[in-house]
Amino acid sequence: MEKSNDHDKASHGGSGGGATEKWEETSLGIRTAETMLRLAPVGLCVAALVVMLKDSETNEFGSISYSNLTAFRYLVHANGICAGYSLLSAAIAAMPRSSSTMPRVWTFFCLDQLLTYLVLAAGAVSAEVLYLAYNGDSAITWSDACSSYGGFCHRATASVIITFFVVCFYIVLSLISSYKLFTRFDPPSIVDSAKNLEVAVFGS
Amino acid sequence: MEKSNDHDKASHGGSGGGATEKWEETSLGIRTAETMLRLAPVGLCVAALVVMLKDSETNEFGSISYSNLTAFRYLVHANGICAGYSLLSAAIAAMPRSSSTMPRVWTFFCLDQLLTYLVLAAGAVSAEVLYLAYNGDSAITWSDACSSYGGFCHRATASVIITFFVVCFYIVLSLISSYKLFTRFDPPSIVDSAKNLEVAVFGS
Repeated sequence: MEKSNDHDKASHGGSGGGATEKWEETSLGIRTAETMLRLAPVGLCVAALVVMLKDSETNEFGSISYSNLTAFRYLVHANGICAGYSLLSAAIAAMPRSSSTMPRVWTFFCLDQLLTYLVLAAGAVSAEVLYLAYNGDSAITWSDACSSYGGFCHRATASVIITFFVVCFYIVLSLISSYKLFTRFDPPSIVDSAKNLEVAVFGS
Repeated sequence: MEKSNDHDKASHGGSGGGATEKWEETSLGIRTAETMLRLAPVGLCVAALVVMLKDSETNEFGSISYSNLTAFRYLVHANGICAGYSLLSAAIAAMPRSSSTMPRVWTFFCLDQLLTYLVLAAGAVSAEVLYLAYNGDSAITWSDACSSYGGFCHRATASVIITFFVVCFYIVLSLISSYKLFTRFDPPSIVDSAKNLEVAVFGS
């Protein structure tokens, strides 16, 4: 909803008790929605984590485990961090807001962006290693591994796919937290001290 | 600068000719700054692209080129797309703004985010393949390649490092474009049709 000129149409102190009750009811609803959105990736992160943690195979060719590949270790760590952060941020988002939340909004914004980049990189790196494991690379004399460890590769693929669902959640979360942050700012402007004239930065 | 209640302190029609001239002067300055920021990654993208494109080595062990590795091919494409997009977006950003720019601000926002994810994934994937090329992985019988193709690996490393500088530029650009976009919105609110009461979404 684009910028309108009168703000706080229904401020907390609004028009009588009914409006305040209404405001609290809706604000609770919104907090619940945000909490749910933050909780949703927890299950996915834990699933991707557990599938990869349990991923090992021993057969006549030898034995292999997720920990033998740095990319998969990174995937496990990234999903672990995301699960922890999702739980913590959901708990904070669920708390009724009393104190000024500007620092909180900034923290959510920065951490959501950071986690998005972290889990995206983990997914991309593991996908590349899986591609090499399925196809090998003759020029660099890397043979494919999945012909020997099929089960291992299938479970790793499942974990990587789940991780990309986590990436999608985090892209939406980082979009929402930048929306929540920047709608609190006026378009930036510079004060021209000489004539005390304030002009819009990134004027468009 | 957090939200103040009176907007457009210096509108275009502002207080007399001097203010308008001042506004145009500063608005031009801002457009130039944004254009520069969008132009800066072009050089880096092209450098990373050219270094990787020319990266091949032939010696007694055999011959190898960047195109033998999917990750490096992806890096070349990602840097090419970034260079093209940076040039195009800088040109558009430099244009004086007449028509309503909401669609433009949304387009910049979405594409900046997308390119950030694209080039971050390219850098991460290539870094992983380089790590494997330097260290190999015995569990999966991948030998290291850089002992045979040292020059190839060094040039590839240089290209990957440059790419991560491009990632930093794009993280800043996507931050600025989300700032430019969301400062145009009031904090979202829901209209309660029964009593025509507007209450803030993500109330905090």
